[in-house]
Amino acid sequence: MKIICSKNSLSNGLQIVTKAVPSKTTMSILECILIDATTDKIKLTANDMELGIETMIDGEISEKGVIALDAKMLFDIVRKLPDNEITIQTDDSFKTNIKCESAKFSLVGKSGEEFSFLPQIEKNNSVILSQFSLKEIIRQTIFSIASNETNKIMTGELFEIKDNTFKVVSLDGHRISIRKIELKNSYEEKKVIVPGKTLNEISKILKDNTDSDVTISISSKHILFEFENTIVVSRLIDGEFFKIDQMLMNDYETKVKINKKNFLDSIDRSTLFIREKNNSPFIMDVTDEKVEISVNCAIGSMKEEIEIEKKGKDILIGFNPYYLMEALKVIDEEEITLFMVNSKAPCYIKNEKENYTYLILPVNFTKQ
Amino acid sequence: MKIICSKNSLSNGLQIVTKAVPSKTTMSILECILIDATTDKIKLTANDMELGIETMIDGEISEKGVIALDAKMLFDIVRKLPDNEITIQTDDSFKTNIKCESAKFSLVGKSGEEFSFLPQIEKNNSVILSQFSLKEIIRQTIFSIASNETNKIMTGELFEIKDNTFKVVSLDGHRISIRKIELKNSYEEKKVIVPGKTLNEISKILKDNTDSDVTISISSKHILFEFENTIVVSRLIDGEFFKIDQMLMNDYETKVKINKKNFLDSIDRSTLFIREKNNSPFIMDVTDEKVEISVNCAIGSMKEEIEIEKKGKDILIGFNPYYLMEALKVIDEEEITLFMVNSKAPCYIKNEKENYTYLILPVNFTKQ
Repeated sequence: MKIICSKNSLSNGLQIVTKAVPSKTTMSILECILIDATTDKIKLTANDMELGIETMIDGEISEKGVIALDAKMLFDIVRKLPDNEITIQTDDSFKTNIKCESAKFSLVGKSGEEFSFLPQIEKNNSVILSQFSLKEIIRQTIFSIASNETNKIMTGELFEIKDNTFKVVSLDGHRISIRKIELKNSYEEKKVIVPGKTLNEISKILKDNTDSDVTISISSKHILFEFENTIVVSRLIDGEFFKIDQMLMNDYETKVKINKKNFLDSIDRSTLFIREKNNSPFIMDVTDEKVEISVNCAIGSMKEEIEIEKKGKDILIGFNPYYLMEALKVIDEEEITLFMVNSKAPCYIKNEKENYTYLILPVNFTKQ
Repeated sequence: MKIICSKNSLSNGLQIVTKAVPSKTTMSILECILIDATTDKIKLTANDMELGIETMIDGEISEKGVIALDAKMLFDIVRKLPDNEITIQTDDSFKTNIKCESAKFSLVGKSGEEFSFLPQIEKNNSVILSQFSLKEIIRQTIFSIASNETNKIMTGELFEIKDNTFKVVSLDGHRISIRKIELKNSYEEKKVIVPGKTLNEISKILKDNTDSDVTISISSKHILFEFENTIVVSRLIDGEFFKIDQMLMNDYETKVKINKKNFLDSIDRSTLFIREKNNSPFIMDVTDEKVEISVNCAIGSMKEEIEIEKKGKDILIGFNPYYLMEALKVIDEEEITLFMVNSKAPCYIKNEKENYTYLILPVNFTKQ
């Protein structure tokens, strides 16, 4: 194989596919990137068997062929080369020369035959949305997936498509995040659970581009994302997602409208006294026109007031401030509304259209 | 005590003095910052017994007094407060209230009496140079102090003042870095060893300012740096520094002039194949008009050529590329000159004026 391409296009392509290279594995072929120049396009592929990414790069093929090269080494070499044309040439023993200006690198590659190809997904009834929308909807929900694997389903997100609505849900036992967007077309109903890892990696590749679309195709075992010159294939998580509709309700006793920035700054300050070992809660004392926020612990205390608009009863309620913060950080609106029932029932943060809903369980505390 | 000052001035002051707060200590008073408002100035002090920093901040004293507060907590609180006036008020039991807008924090402080004051240094024959010069001279030598404590003297830098020359030397057994600058005045001869830690911390506080001076005073046990509203006092390292003049010489067999950026880029690429476990050296094969650089190891190899201007014999010599890189990175000139004798003798990088000299020992390698 002999290919010539610019440093820029090779480096961009590698940056995309390396997202699917596992950091630790016992199978050394998985640590490789496949450079496939057997057709008239140069295709880079990485595949850790759960997540596979393939991208096409611009370049010239002077001799067709295929080679698997250590991903980290290849990426680092290309990154450090001058900004010019790079030639990659292999011989029959998989020895690979990488040349750029006067720099010459030599690496021992692997046969492309050992490499596992990406699964084929049938593309019917594919869902279309912009790269921007997909990136946003992931950012606004991914923080509340569970990080440990004790419940596999909680490590993924529900993707639910019904008519022209795309709903994404994540939960970790303490909170639920729900985002809904409207699609341009209507589709038949689909519900699948996509691994959080896949969504984290894909959101790093997606651009903040409202003009460029992503096409999502779903089979029984896999989900396929196609955009620009790139395709991402991931296994789905088996099982049925939690029935969250039963947990949501529309009744409330207290409704509080508050400036998001003031609230967020105040929660941020409160976390100074909340270290992992001491579980002092963040206490909100909601009365007419103001909420008094306080934290008390052995090393000190903080207290402050924020103006609010309140409807309904006064309430004294405690939270883990990090759960509040993570939800507030992804809401783009300047004013947010909290809906509460009592100090033991979940608090909802949602807007009128309900295109986002964040449910957060309160924590118990002893009144001081 | 009751003081009122802007967030900005308090936060800047704390940023300076916290450099002398130890990250780990068994004496909790050392983790504190002393706020001293007993005179008509607000003075912040931190002191880990090796290094002490004191800085004056603007503000209003409405009630004189002194308090020691946990440095990390105070710094984090101030950092997260709104950009407005901050009031710090203490009572007889050292309870301290920190107020800013509607935010109120309460902390338990310590009596100022437990706090160790900075040692007094006599200020005669003090050396004066610009903040910029001191910062530069530290940056250009600090990388070659020894990191482990087996030889205490190697963890510091020699400060040698003689007539109007200020010379700084550091060495770690593999290399020596020497920087000389000319002072405006002449001084009597002084030689002291300043701890690397002190120099690292002070260079973070110094500004890139050629107009503002630093005054350095030296006693038998301490060194004092004074600049703007800040003073830094450090213990010196006991003992006599290495006699480096015996190691330096002016003879050479090969003199090589090379473009610094090309050389540095090439060394940087070579490090891809040089991981901690395999000690493949960076080999330079100097012939007329070019140097061929190569690295060979089990996973691959690299080779490249750089144009040079050469005087004297051809030479084949190997180095630890990181030692070359660290020296090259701090040299501001576009072209550098290497002086070599043979493959076992040290290589010198220096300019004509010899205001910098970097000596690097070569490494052995088997010719392939």
